Amino acid sequence: MSPLDVQQLRDNTPGCQSGIVHFNHAGASLPSQASLDAIIDQLQREARDGPMEAGEHGAILAEKARRAAGQLLNAPTSSIAFASSGSAAWSMAFQALGPWQPGERILVGRHEWGANLASMQLAVQAGAQIEVIPCDETGAVCPSALASMIDANVKLIDLTWLPANGGLINPAEAIGAVARRHAIPYFIDAGQAVGQLPVDVQALHCDVLKSAGRKHLRGPRGTALLYVRPTFLQRLNPAQRDVFSAPWSAEGFDLRNDARRFETSEVSYALLAGLGNALQEVNRLGVERTWERVLRLSERIREALRQIPGVSLHDLGTHHSGLIAFNLAGWDAFELKRRLGLKRINIGANGVAYTPLDMRARDLMSIARISVSPLNTEQDIERLIGALRELRD
Amino acid sequence: MSPLDVQQLRDNTPGCQSGIVHFNHAGASLPSQASLDAIIDQLQREARDGPMEAGEHGAILAEKARRAAGQLLNAPTSSIAFASSGSAAWSMAFQALGPWQPGERILVGRHEWGANLASMQLAVQAGAQIEVIPCDETGAVCPSALASMIDANVKLIDLTWLPANGGLINPAEAIGAVARRHAIPYFIDAGQAVGQLPVDVQALHCDVLKSAGRKHLRGPRGTALLYVRPTFLQRLNPAQRDVFSAPWSAEGFDLRNDARRFETSEVSYALLAGLGNALQEVNRLGVERTWERVLRLSERIREALRQIPGVSLHDLGTHHSGLIAFNLAGWDAFELKRRLGLKRINIGANGVAYTPLDMRARDLMSIARISVSPLNTEQDIERLIGALRELRD
Repeated sequence: MSPLDVQQLRDNTPGCQSGIVHFNHAGASLPSQASLDAIIDQLQREARDGPMEAGEHGAILAEKARRAAGQLLNAPTSSIAFASSGSAAWSMAFQALGPWQPGERILVGRHEWGANLASMQLAVQAGAQIEVIPCDETGAVCPSALASMIDANVKLIDLTWLPANGGLINPAEAIGAVARRHAIPYFIDAGQAVGQLPVDVQALHCDVLKSAGRKHLRGPRGTALLYVRPTFLQRLNPAQRDVFSAPWSAEGFDLRNDARRFETSEVSYALLAGLGNALQEVNRLGVERTWERVLRLSERIREALRQIPGVSLHDLGTHHSGLIAFNLAGWDAFELKRRLGLKRINIGANGVAYTPLDMRARDLMSIARISVSPLNTEQDIERLIGALRELRD
Repeated sequence: MSPLDVQQLRDNTPGCQSGIVHFNHAGASLPSQASLDAIIDQLQREARDGPMEAGEHGAILAEKARRAAGQLLNAPTSSIAFASSGSAAWSMAFQALGPWQPGERILVGRHEWGANLASMQLAVQAGAQIEVIPCDETGAVCPSALASMIDANVKLIDLTWLPANGGLINPAEAIGAVARRHAIPYFIDAGQAVGQLPVDVQALHCDVLKSAGRKHLRGPRGTALLYVRPTFLQRLNPAQRDVFSAPWSAEGFDLRNDARRFETSEVSYALLAGLGNALQEVNRLGVERTWERVLRLSERIREALRQIPGVSLHDLGTHHSGLIAFNLAGWDAFELKRRLGLKRINIGANGVAYTPLDMRARDLMSIARISVSPLNTEQDIERLIGALRELRD
């Protein structure tokens, strides 16, 4: 990505013109003006023509978004559903595997997203067990350890690919190979992956994959996408149904034959218009180029952090993403985030609840989190590192 | 409501300035400019400051919306949850009554919303039965017939108060009295009621009530509200959970102790800001005054329709809401809607799937639907009736 490309990206992004330094792309990234305009345009169309009447145009925009999402994930358009929350979408797919029976096993990585664990509680109440796949010596989920756990009671393998609390990139393809070998359903939480690095659902061998729209895709809040492998669809019996996903017919209620059996009839087409524009921008830019720049910038930041006395880095694994977990001696992570915010530098901070199994295993109460996007510049890094040095002193 | 009040309402509504005549408020009504501005303002704040960073302000707006919703329904603020789809919210509450057992009975009105029936299919798969409460001679759900159906196996009484396919107002309070007498859970689908007529959850004796945001509340698409009676909350065990509704703690996953156990951590605060403004406008205007005007205008329309040869009215019950179901001889309802749309007059048209039990019972394949709001004027009515007369000729 050339300096000119970066400048163009930033010029088209209101949040890069407002004097803030944004390193919270893993919380939510900054939308482009064009994505914002796409939302506002549909909202105004709804207000002018009638919200349902404008739905015809909205549906066309949603289909464009769906095609762009399919292209990004190397998936057929019909395998993409939209939702208003990634965790809600994941939970619907999970519940649709039920009813759960006593003794059934759910194998998860230690870095599993807290919301997914929360949604598994009904399966646990029904007698299923959540078991943690051991990590290798770097702290990543270990595919061979997984292979040795497989038996006929394993009903689901579930992986949070890029966990929320650091730079770890779990070996999602190698896990997928094990799942496929044993024909076990495989769900991936790709909330931090989609838009940041190349995602190919065929190579991953996953049956279900979800992502938020607001993170590395730079879509609006309240949007998410769910991929469901077409050949896996018949295994999923959604509890939540409506006049769109399962319309009445003379024969009963016909569950849709595509991923949209997980969609709701009522949606905000305005938000989907924004998500669609964001997805098209990601595709146009090329996620390989995004990933290359994220890697370079985040390595720069890690190097600089290592030079600051009192900084401890908490990224597991060997290769790292653009999420950087750290703590500064003498500082609570949330207070550090707040103080940087006062200097107009946005970072994140996570407690135990987001990745409880991993945080407890590592005896961490909280971590500060820097997350990088191609929008970030060397100047951003200087302001961030300068501010951290100031606060340390 | 004085002519000046109406003029002011219309002046503040972009859809009343655009030359359309809107009689599809039961599909979705026209938002005010101020509600639109509230959404755009939060979207711009997110783009400028960072979407998560703007969430602090967003949460304040969402709380204002919650208070306004509580005020409108005569309910404590803590009993209100927001969702992105009314049907999805209803479905979550319904599933949370489970697991369902063979022989358990669900008693519904004949006019039940199709999405709710679709979501009951998992209970049916588990062996529960859906049974239709008989109607009285006017076609309304009959409370005394309900009373005679009650036994220990009835797990839920569910009523669509104002059905989608006409002007019927079901006796929701009288049904609630039966439910309460027998201590049976009582859900109300109030999608067409909230914002149109006074709704008091205490008088209704309902345990759960849902509404869309986009209809008579004039909120944005992709918003909904769910009321859950605080004393009923313990009966509901939601399947869908996340880091907000059931955050991890050292003791496990703590399900929230208010209606927000049905909310998701990720929301569009922008849409909630718009919904909040819309709710405040409804409260300021006074729903009694809204209802009075809706009744007057819709009675005018019914009278005028009766004068058009070939028009058949399909409104059940004795007292009617602002939803007017009709057919015009020789016209398919959907084609009629399309043709009126070309004349910039918006109405609705429903097939069987929205209210399948009632449509089949009445042998109706489709109905055209006019729905009224205080925004409508005598001039609107003249254009509508004139256009219908023209199409008839």
